[in-house]
Amino acid sequence: MPPTNKQVTLAARPSGMPKESDFKLVEIPVPQPGPGEILVRMLYVSVDPYMRNRMNDAKSYAPPVQIGGVMGGGAVGKVIASENSQFAAGDFVEGLFGWQEYAISNGKGVRKLDPALAPVSTALGVLGMPGMTAYVGLLDIGKPQPGETVVVAAASGAVGSAVGQIAKIKGARAVGIAGGKDKCDYVKKELGFDDCLDHRDPDLAARLKEACPKGIDVYFENVGGAVFEAVFPLLNPFARVPVCGLIAQYNDTAATVPKWASSMMRTVLTKRLTIRGFIVSDFAARHADFLRDMPQWVREGKVKHREFVTEGLDSAPGAFMGLLKGANFGKQLVRVGPDTA
Amino acid sequence: MPPTNKQVTLAARPSGMPKESDFKLVEIPVPQPGPGEILVRMLYVSVDPYMRNRMNDAKSYAPPVQIGGVMGGGAVGKVIASENSQFAAGDFVEGLFGWQEYAISNGKGVRKLDPALAPVSTALGVLGMPGMTAYVGLLDIGKPQPGETVVVAAASGAVGSAVGQIAKIKGARAVGIAGGKDKCDYVKKELGFDDCLDHRDPDLAARLKEACPKGIDVYFENVGGAVFEAVFPLLNPFARVPVCGLIAQYNDTAATVPKWASSMMRTVLTKRLTIRGFIVSDFAARHADFLRDMPQWVREGKVKHREFVTEGLDSAPGAFMGLLKGANFGKQLVRVGPDTA
Repeated sequence: MPPTNKQVTLAARPSGMPKESDFKLVEIPVPQPGPGEILVRMLYVSVDPYMRNRMNDAKSYAPPVQIGGVMGGGAVGKVIASENSQFAAGDFVEGLFGWQEYAISNGKGVRKLDPALAPVSTALGVLGMPGMTAYVGLLDIGKPQPGETVVVAAASGAVGSAVGQIAKIKGARAVGIAGGKDKCDYVKKELGFDDCLDHRDPDLAARLKEACPKGIDVYFENVGGAVFEAVFPLLNPFARVPVCGLIAQYNDTAATVPKWASSMMRTVLTKRLTIRGFIVSDFAARHADFLRDMPQWVREGKVKHREFVTEGLDSAPGAFMGLLKGANFGKQLVRVGPDTA
Repeated sequence: MPPTNKQVTLAARPSGMPKESDFKLVEIPVPQPGPGEILVRMLYVSVDPYMRNRMNDAKSYAPPVQIGGVMGGGAVGKVIASENSQFAAGDFVEGLFGWQEYAISNGKGVRKLDPALAPVSTALGVLGMPGMTAYVGLLDIGKPQPGETVVVAAASGAVGSAVGQIAKIKGARAVGIAGGKDKCDYVKKELGFDDCLDHRDPDLAARLKEACPKGIDVYFENVGGAVFEAVFPLLNPFARVPVCGLIAQYNDTAATVPKWASSMMRTVLTKRLTIRGFIVSDFAARHADFLRDMPQWVREGKVKHREFVTEGLDSAPGAFMGLLKGANFGKQLVRVGPDTA
C-alpha cells in the first residue's frame, strides 16, 4: 500500500481566534515528481503568526489561503525523489511547502541546507525567516545605537528573542515583554536581556516606565494592541518603530485599542508604510543643498510662490488667526517697516 | 521723541482657536545695541502655523512662549546700528526676531541677505524655512519617484506649494488640496499641479480617489484631521508620509479624528518618530549579510534560541492556535518526519 500524504487544509475562515473546525486533515496519495520536479518528505513544518492573516479573505501582502487549500508556510524536509538536476535524493531543503507530509516542487525558492552547519530546524527559526525578520527590522529600520533602549514583545519567541540579543550585540539596552514568569526568566537569564516584563501584569505601563528610565529609542513592533499603548507614551524623540507584526490584533473582532488607531497600524504593516515626523532643523546638514537647488528652481520658473502680506505689526495676530483658518493665500507675512527690498 | 518698539506679546494661552484677547500690543522704547550686538528694524515678520503650538504650555519640540513674552518667529529686517563686526548698518538680515518692530541680537543664527539675488521676503518663504521644510521632507523622506503620485494639503501655502512643484520637478504627479476655488485654480493653473481638490468638498474622499487613480505614494502631511482620514485608505504599499505639521489639529479641543489616532499623530510629529511597516522579503538584498552574521553570532553564543516542537502534522492546527495565545515558548515547529537532522 503506497504511503499517503497527510495535509492540513483550511476548512473555514475563522471569525476571531481560529478553532479546530476551521482546519481539516485530509489524506491523499503521495504525488510523484514530474520532469524538473522534486518530491520532499517533511521534517519540520513551521507555524508562524502571519498565517492568521492568510486565513482571512482579505487583501494583505500575500494572497489568502483558499478554502480547501493546504495551509501555506515554510517547512524543512528531505528530498526523496528528484527529477531536477539541482537536487539529489537525501538533500535537506527548506521551502514554502505548507502543512503537509509530502510536497512536490519545481525547486524554485527551495534552499539546500547543510545539516553539518546547523540543525536543519534552525532554517525555520533563528537562521530562517524569523531571524532575518529580527535582523533587518532591527538593524535597517530600528538602527539601535550603543546605550539606547530597545523594547520588543513576544521576547521569548523566534523573532523577539533574536531582536533583543542583536540589540545587545550592538551595545543597546534590551527590554523584553513576554507572557508569564518562565518566559521572562528565560529572556533575562538565558538570553541576557536587561529586563523582561509580563504583559499580563495589570501595571504593565508603570512597570515598563520603571524598566526604561531613559525612555524607549527602538520599539520593535510585533504584537500591537495593549503593549503598543503602553509603549507609545515612552517613545523618545527620534524613536524608531519597525512594525513587522500585530499578533495581539490578528484575532480582534472587538478591538482592544481604539478601532481607528488599530486599523491604522494594520495598514502601516500590510502596506509597509513609513510614517515619520520631522522638523526642518533636524536636516540642518541639507541646508547647503537647499540653497543650491531652490533659488535655481525659482529662477528657472520651476518653483513659483506667492506671498500674502498684511500691513503693520498690529495686523500680526489677525494674520495668524486667519492663517489657522486658511484665510491666507500663499506665504503669510506681516510687512512692518517703511522700506522694502 | 525717540521711536518706540511695538511688540505683540502673548496675553493668555488660547483654548482652541486663538482670539484677539490672547494677544497684547505693547510699546517700549527702542533698545540700544551693546558690545557685539546689532539693532534690527523689521521689514517682514513671518506668521507660521507652528506658532500655535508655542502658545500652549506643553512640551513640544521647542519651549513655549511665556505669558507676557514677545511672540517668537522668523523675521527679516535691516540692521540700523551695529556693534558687531560681522554686520554693518544697511545689511538685510533674517533671524528669529519675533513679532516686534525692532530687535537686538548678538548675531547668532542671523543670516545676511543679498537683496539683489531675491526679494528679502523670500527668506521667510520659498527660500526660507517653509521652502526648506518642503525640500527635505519631500526629497529626504518622501523620496518621490517618476510617475508616482504625491499629495499635499495646504497646497497654495508656503510649504505645500513648494512640495507639489518639487514633486513635478522629480517627475511625479502632484495633487493638491486647498480651501476654495481660487486657491485650487492657482494651484492647478499657476503652480502646475496635476489636480487640486477643495477640502471643503463634502465628498473629498471620493474626489481624492478619482484624482489619484493609481493611489498615493507620498502624502506630505501638514494638516492632519479630516484630510488625513481621506488620504489614509488610498496610500499605496510602501507609501511614505513625512509628517511636518497638523494645522487642522492644532486647535482641537474636541478632536475631529478619533482621539487616540489624533494624539498618536501629534506625537509622531513632536517626537519625530518613524513608524514603518515591513515584511522580511522587502529586504531580500540583505539576505547575504544575514547569512554572514547570524550563524556566527549563534556559534559565538551571542544569539541563543529555543524551539518549541509539537509532534506530527495533526498537531499543526493546535500548535498554531496555541501560538496565537502565546502557549508556545520559543520558535514553534511541528515535527513531521520520522528522521531528523
